[in-house]
Amino acid sequence: MLALIRELFPICRSITGDGLRQTLSRLGELIPLETHEVPTGTQVFDWTIPKEWNIRDAFIKDRSGRRVVDFEENNLHVVNYSVPVRARMTLRDLRPHLHSLPAHADWIPYRTSYYTEAWGFCLSHRVLESLPDDEYEVVIDSSLRAGALTFAECVVPGRLDDEFLISTHVCHPSMANDNLSGVAVAVMLARILAGARPRYTYRFLFLPGTIGAITWLALNEVAAPKVKHGLVLACVGDRGDVHYKRSRRGDADIDRAVEHVLRTKHEPFAVEDFSPYGYDERQFCSPGFDLPMGGFRRSPGGQYAEYHSSADDTDFVSAPHLAHSLGTLLEVIDLIENDVKFLNLSPMGEPQLGKRGLLPAAGETAQLALLWVLNLSDGRSGVLDIAERSGLPFDVLRPAIESLLNGGLLEERRRPADRSERSTMMHEP
Amino acid sequence: MLALIRELFPICRSITGDGLRQTLSRLGELIPLETHEVPTGTQVFDWTIPKEWNIRDAFIKDRSGRRVVDFEENNLHVVNYSVPVRARMTLRDLRPHLHSLPAHADWIPYRTSYYTEAWGFCLSHRVLESLPDDEYEVVIDSSLRAGALTFAECVVPGRLDDEFLISTHVCHPSMANDNLSGVAVAVMLARILAGARPRYTYRFLFLPGTIGAITWLALNEVAAPKVKHGLVLACVGDRGDVHYKRSRRGDADIDRAVEHVLRTKHEPFAVEDFSPYGYDERQFCSPGFDLPMGGFRRSPGGQYAEYHSSADDTDFVSAPHLAHSLGTLLEVIDLIENDVKFLNLSPMGEPQLGKRGLLPAAGETAQLALLWVLNLSDGRSGVLDIAERSGLPFDVLRPAIESLLNGGLLEERRRPADRSERSTMMHEP
Amino acid sequence: MLALIRELFPICRSITGDGLRQTLSRLGELIPLETHEVPTGTQVFDWTIPKEWNIRDAFIKDRSGRRVVDFEENNLHVVNYSVPVRARMTLRDLRPHLHSLPAHADWIPYRTSYYTEAWGFCLSHRVLESLPDDEYEVVIDSSLRAGALTFAECVVPGRLDDEFLISTHVCHPSMANDNLSGVAVAVMLARILAGARPRYTYRFLFLPGTIGAITWLALNEVAAPKVKHGLVLACVGDRGDVHYKRSRRGDADIDRAVEHVLRTKHEPFAVEDFSPYGYDERQFCSPGFDLPMGGFRRSPGGQYAEYHSSADDTDFVSAPHLAHSLGTLLEVIDLIENDVKFLNLSPMGEPQLGKRGLLPAAGETAQLALLWVLNLSDGRSGVLDIAERSGLPFDVLRPAIESLLNGGLLEERRRPADRSERSTMMHEP
Repeated sequence: MLALIRELFPICRSITGDGLRQTLSRLGELIPLETHEVPTGTQVFDWTIPKEWNIRDAFIKDRSGRRVVDFEENNLHVVNYSVPVRARMTLRDLRPHLHSLPAHADWIPYRTSYYTEAWGFCLSHRVLESLPDDEYEVVIDSSLRAGALTFAECVVPGRLDDEFLISTHVCHPSMANDNLSGVAVAVMLARILAGARPRYTYRFLFLPGTIGAITWLALNEVAAPKVKHGLVLACVGDRGDVHYKRSRRGDADIDRAVEHVLRTKHEPFAVEDFSPYGYDERQFCSPGFDLPMGGFRRSPGGQYAEYHSSADDTDFVSAPHLAHSLGTLLEVIDLIENDVKFLNLSPMGEPQLGKRGLLPAAGETAQLALLWVLNLSDGRSGVLDIAERSGLPFDVLRPAIESLLNGGLLEERRRPADRSERSTMMHEP
Repeated sequence: MLALIRELFPICRSITGDGLRQTLSRLGELIPLETHEVPTGTQVFDWTIPKEWNIRDAFIKDRSGRRVVDFEENNLHVVNYSVPVRARMTLRDLRPHLHSLPAHADWIPYRTSYYTEAWGFCLSHRVLESLPDDEYEVVIDSSLRAGALTFAECVVPGRLDDEFLISTHVCHPSMANDNLSGVAVAVMLARILAGARPRYTYRFLFLPGTIGAITWLALNEVAAPKVKHGLVLACVGDRGDVHYKRSRRGDADIDRAVEHVLRTKHEPFAVEDFSPYGYDERQFCSPGFDLPMGGFRRSPGGQYAEYHSSADDTDFVSAPHLAHSLGTLLEVIDLIENDVKFLNLSPMGEPQLGKRGLLPAAGETAQLALLWVLNLSDGRSGVLDIAERSGLPFDVLRPAIESLLNGGLLEERRRPADRSERSTMMHEP
Repeated sequence: MLALIRELFPICRSITGDGLRQTLSRLGELIPLETHEVPTGTQVFDWTIPKEWNIRDAFIKDRSGRRVVDFEENNLHVVNYSVPVRARMTLRDLRPHLHSLPAHADWIPYRTSYYTEAWGFCLSHRVLESLPDDEYEVVIDSSLRAGALTFAECVVPGRLDDEFLISTHVCHPSMANDNLSGVAVAVMLARILAGARPRYTYRFLFLPGTIGAITWLALNEVAAPKVKHGLVLACVGDRGDVHYKRSRRGDADIDRAVEHVLRTKHEPFAVEDFSPYGYDERQFCSPGFDLPMGGFRRSPGGQYAEYHSSADDTDFVSAPHLAHSLGTLLEVIDLIENDVKFLNLSPMGEPQLGKRGLLPAAGETAQLALLWVLNLSDGRSGVLDIAERSGLPFDVLRPAIESLLNGGLLEERRRPADRSERSTMMHEP
């Protein structure tokens, strides 16, 4: 994942344009990806697909012809979506177009102006301070023209039509944690699940932030209710603890599953309630959709100094933290995948485990797992309920469930939907 | 308010009689007041209106003719509702009729005997201790005769028949916090609301404690369910923090509104659950009515040393604390008045605020307020729900709601009752 | 109770056999007891009644003929349900059959092997260490033959068919807290209730652990739903605080009643959620029955060092702690017995208590009790609800209820079941 992040890092992405296409194209070599192009001007709910932005070069040259600010060095130097500029101007006139971070004098800030036509440069405060009061040549060789907004989907088909949606924004230029980390972890998840024949159908979205999510929702308004669980991945490679933001519903299965996994890992973590501010959960959890989707991240955007600056580079993320995010997500998916209801086939008193060779040593966790599964498998409780009430992690419950299924003491309770799949003849004469 | 308290302070009020009439008459000069006289002997539920009590003078004279205890000096000196007495008696015989506060030797206690015919004097423990063992002339020039119980109502009509009931007891003689403070704050609230054309109809009750509330309920048994919110005001002028006692229901809108206002003020406060002991919430929250009414006070009755004594004088209350109580109540009323449901007219994803000039700087409270109102305006949540879930005070939500209404993004969701008011033709052919 | 424990202590009990019969026979002299014999081989749900076990003698003799381990000295010396043995063997061969507690070198552990045919001896670690590497004569003079499982019931009839079930295991040999303490307290409870003409029918079960409870459930499958409240008593004589384990339902009346009694006693106590591990609540709370039964104990089994060892002797339990358990249980039963709903017959405002001579001094607990009972007796709340919401112990509420019933202010709300009992003519022509 770190290698992919390093490879994609230099590309100048935006919410439209060739950098975005190039990134998605590279992802398409790793996972099966369907790429969509939505033309400029298309109405998507309350929004309109904007003009497409592309950039070739940009710089500020001093009187000696030296590039004092150079897009080639770091694409954060240009305010993303800047209109073309070609001018000579004094520092005084240029100054309102220059952005820096006085508190972090060596870092270049990340700025955008997607929906207001403007231009500007971002530079370190140290360089800004060193600029003599002189005349400069200012060039932004960009274009803002009718084109398209690009996004991509990867679908891993499951046994059910019901979907688990994983969305990640892919519009940020050279920043590693925000959000090449989310992109890399999503790609890896898709590869792992593709080999697993899962129960749910998994849909991965690689979208430009906000407008991309709104576009996908507009194109999939009717199908959206198929989403039974979902996560928005962002900032999952830094050294912070896992931070989960609940869905708008607050008690969706995904909320309960993530919290159970985090609680049983015996590591620090944070959980916060939904708020309509943050990443694309804003869109997926808008009142017209209210999808059961939470936000999975490590240090939340805006809560670390390096956020939206050149300091969010490939050193800011680490392979162990990417792997930890991936592993935690796989545990969550494992629990959701296996969250079915079982029926205890010997519910009157305890069944005699000993005569079936199912009796671990008294008091051990393995015995508790058997007893909890038997006691709660009354047709109302699913595996997630059992995990929550017993406090036992799913990897402790799983072998108990397997033993009881094999011992003939447990039976999966089919949902009516599943049943009707198997008995299509039932309405025939 | 303090001036009114000082003016009314000397009057000897009781649960019936001319002191009560004189007090209500003065209030009637400040707000429109309908005064009711309910004749002695009238049955009100389980109670009977008692004889009317009036008093002209009372004293204890020593052998030298000096008034050692004098009603003219302080009307607390007489046990309220004392039957007439005219006698010469030894200190030994008089002693069982004398009440003092040994722990506060300079204060006169407040005592009553409404429903048992008795008489007595209250005096400072210092004076009591100084009385020589001698003979005294004891006079209580009172009368206890068929008459009436007096109470008054002030109605501020609103756009709805639904009522907000504010009740305060007006029967206590010379004590400032208990309860001229409640009377003064209620008068000021009535004056402010009269100029505001409110949504709810506000009814202010100035009642003798217990028997007055029971009388009002008996006379308004059928209309009582119109009360949708209510507060009992008492002891609202002292230096203590605001103390709210929940309604019997515990989660009525008034409970939620008061608690939200108190929580967002960043000042100390206390909230307690309902108990059937205290002021007239005992009656309004009796099981046959169970009105959604809480108790609003500062230091609760019985929890401060000066309670029911001459130390509860006009110095015990302060203008800033009266004003703080009034301001807090106005915030509560403002929230209840504005607790309507809105519909987000662009509920699929977020609407594009920028193109409407509605976008405050990212992350600011004003932006959060816009996003919360949009996200929760799904037809189920009202303003109080939004305030509670977002944790944002109503004065932060209000401009957001205004902006969104003006921007065409929000629409008030009319209740069926409102709708029928506006479309009376709907059932015509 | 301590005398009974001391008398029964020496008997070698097991889940079947004459020691169990002898114990139940002695209990039958104290309370009316119906004893059941269920033949070996009877199927009870998933289990089968095992062969009956009896033992006459057992020992290990050294070469000199001295009994180094002697069943006559302490019946814990033999692994309970050991098959017969008569052999000479080296210490090396004998060693796998010897059990001791290295951490408590003077104590004899308690071991069983009910469902796997095996044999063994338990001895103090000190004796085990002292055995020379020599040849020993090993004798267990036991029998394991077709017979019966014995259990007994004591029914104290009540005015209702609904039952309060108290179950206690009676299968353990010479250990006092586990569980002669439970047996003794249950016997005393039955004697007290027999003289009380209770509302509920009380059924006391003296059962072998696990198999006994399963057997009773199998024989009473249809009648089990009559159990409206229940407790499993075990380990109720030691010096620990009372420890209550909630029923599987978690909020059954019995859970609420025990917790209310414990909270209002102002003594330390512990409450834990249900788990499917412990005593016979495992069976009564299995999903096919889910009876509202909790576990009442002092130090929970397995959580004290002396558990399942010879140190759990008659000195380990004390009369004051047995009496405290009994008293607490009687308080719980008193609350459940009296948990009926009342109707306030004067629900509009407060009734005038003074004119009925019902007014205790203001603010006193007795007045609060009157006001709470009146306020909550709206036909929905029962005594347990009132106790919980007011925080007042039942022995404070009881005289208030009596006063109000006598004063004509309260009426018991009959349940339809009670009503039909009294009006059997209602369906006649």
